[in-house]
Amino acid sequence: MQNFDYQTPTRLLFGKGVIEQLPEVLGAIGKTVLLAYGGGSIKKTGLYDKVLSLLEGFTVVELPGIQPNPKYDPSVLDGVRLCKERGVDVILSVGGGSVLDCSKAIAAGAKYDGDPWDLITYKVKAKAALPIVDILTLAATGSEYDCGGVISRTETNDKIGYIDELLFPVCSFLDPTYTFTVSKKQTAAGCADAMNHIMEQYFCEDSTLLNDGFCEAGFRSLMINTKRCLENPSDYTARAEMMFACTLGCNGIYALGNSPSGWPLHGIEHALSAYYDITHGEGLAIVTPRWMKHVLSDRTVDRFVKYGVNVFGVDPALPKFEIAEQAIERTYAFFEEIGIPMHLRDVGIDESRIDEMARHVAENEGLENAWVPLFEADIAKILRDSL
Amino acid sequence: MQNFDYQTPTRLLFGKGVIEQLPEVLGAIGKTVLLAYGGGSIKKTGLYDKVLSLLEGFTVVELPGIQPNPKYDPSVLDGVRLCKERGVDVILSVGGGSVLDCSKAIAAGAKYDGDPWDLITYKVKAKAALPIVDILTLAATGSEYDCGGVISRTETNDKIGYIDELLFPVCSFLDPTYTFTVSKKQTAAGCADAMNHIMEQYFCEDSTLLNDGFCEAGFRSLMINTKRCLENPSDYTARAEMMFACTLGCNGIYALGNSPSGWPLHGIEHALSAYYDITHGEGLAIVTPRWMKHVLSDRTVDRFVKYGVNVFGVDPALPKFEIAEQAIERTYAFFEEIGIPMHLRDVGIDESRIDEMARHVAENEGLENAWVPLFEADIAKILRDSL
Repeated sequence: MQNFDYQTPTRLLFGKGVIEQLPEVLGAIGKTVLLAYGGGSIKKTGLYDKVLSLLEGFTVVELPGIQPNPKYDPSVLDGVRLCKERGVDVILSVGGGSVLDCSKAIAAGAKYDGDPWDLITYKVKAKAALPIVDILTLAATGSEYDCGGVISRTETNDKIGYIDELLFPVCSFLDPTYTFTVSKKQTAAGCADAMNHIMEQYFCEDSTLLNDGFCEAGFRSLMINTKRCLENPSDYTARAEMMFACTLGCNGIYALGNSPSGWPLHGIEHALSAYYDITHGEGLAIVTPRWMKHVLSDRTVDRFVKYGVNVFGVDPALPKFEIAEQAIERTYAFFEEIGIPMHLRDVGIDESRIDEMARHVAENEGLENAWVPLFEADIAKILRDSL
Repeated sequence: MQNFDYQTPTRLLFGKGVIEQLPEVLGAIGKTVLLAYGGGSIKKTGLYDKVLSLLEGFTVVELPGIQPNPKYDPSVLDGVRLCKERGVDVILSVGGGSVLDCSKAIAAGAKYDGDPWDLITYKVKAKAALPIVDILTLAATGSEYDCGGVISRTETNDKIGYIDELLFPVCSFLDPTYTFTVSKKQTAAGCADAMNHIMEQYFCEDSTLLNDGFCEAGFRSLMINTKRCLENPSDYTARAEMMFACTLGCNGIYALGNSPSGWPLHGIEHALSAYYDITHGEGLAIVTPRWMKHVLSDRTVDRFVKYGVNVFGVDPALPKFEIAEQAIERTYAFFEEIGIPMHLRDVGIDESRIDEMARHVAENEGLENAWVPLFEADIAKILRDSL
């Protein structure tokens, strides 16, 4: 078991109707609120009107239109400018992980005099950040319970994970009913994203019985509940459990004390969605079984055996490599069953930029230090196998 | 899944050698430290000297001699007086859950002008508390990651759980090597305490797949690692995993969103250790299988089936009640195997005060609202069955 230093100050308000506490939570922080949101689905569902009615008495500055794989330009830059010009006290992020990730970059940028890109690329360490409160509408990224975000810069094909302990949300409002209207596509992609967050912690050199049990419970819970959500999008219990399993995804709690894996799946996928702006969870799901096959070896097989037996119920009496291969096949089959396109060409990616992406990943993601080290040729092979 | 409001601000510094960060953590809070500890085992192990060497430059006020089942008089009262007289900025608790629970009551009392018992009995809500930092030497109570404590008042046989969100430790130093010297008796009792914390969350009406998996991982991890610790007290990995499984025990994370169980095992045991000052974990272990037998019914059997199959690997093809009974027998057998005396008479408790204790529990613990409601006659029966 590895040493760790862990602290998550975020308050979680979970369940139907918790939004009624929004004025109290925001009121304790300040009066001028940057209301950040996405493409307008919250207007269709009525959540936008509900939030505005609860914000009566606050000064509301709106930042609409934040896109998936949120963009440095214009969203982060616009948000920072608005916060500075209007003296924003607190950012209220209403949406999924993209809106929240963007809000985190804005929160840090708003308290910094220079180019916010300095912070995102760690050239400068943030000294302060605006407080963030979020209302989650999509179960996926876990950004509501961590201090990181991912920001894309289109002109350089960069998609950068930005982590700073100043960026834990003060309070996350998690009402599963807000996810009833999430499409099948996004429900499945959210599941794949969260499954991958757990995989990035589970597939490592040194873990504990406790953590393995936590992770395996996460996998099983996500798989069963996602299928229930797809069958009946208004199944409160399934939406609730899926939401919470996702919320814990990037917080560390699934595997405190495990050795670091290097997060290879995210490292590879970030290039896919940076170059092609695809849905992050879909990119992860496509890469996952190909990565698994690539890294399966005498050294790693026991880990895949444990995964196969405890997550998929594969017969432990089978030969080890057969269990591992079944586990990989069943991972693929699960993603396919929930409707994820399982080939890169299905999401509009062909061979043309594979080598370029592989080089970008090899140069920027540090995967030579991953659980199973990955170099440019490995990454290119995994991407080709994913076509 | 039930609504919840969850926040744990405590920082966990986990692993060998983390104590070196003590001056930095305390220095950020203040200069005058109340050093609270127990019967002196930290002097034998050298931890006391180590702490004092790290506290060079701080003003140290000592509160030694805090007993197991910590006493309101003298420990809490002495601590409060010292904090007020000496202008203490921060309490440093070095020891197990008893020292830490006592420190929490002192922390609240030190910021209150009246009788601290008012706070413990919720007659008055604390408005402030001194910050607490702890160095843990026993894996058991989970007090290092929650905001509650249990205080005993000898003259009235009261043993009261006191919870206030002001009482989360600022930082808990969790170095598993400090538990190498814990006796077999206390190692086993600590395991039983933590197992029971999880049981009090697991045995309830409404739970999730995720939480069930977390709890079952906790049970399995505690059972396997406690046996390893007993075989080899210096097994770092086993001590580490046991410590962390215990740390999460009362924090809620094992079962956020589960319906409340009413914590019946603790309700009953508090009378045993209040009247007889026995080791809390032993009292819990003794009561547990008798409580399980008492509450097993058509309504509850499925919960025991899940427990039996997933924790003990009982054959799921057996009839339901047979699985449940095997699960109860194996719980008993596990506690016996790790050396816990499994009858009240083994720890010096005879029939003479059973009815009095049952009445005390029925009047004070609210167990009529437990998962399976318990009234005075039920409690008396469980206690008699435990003789």
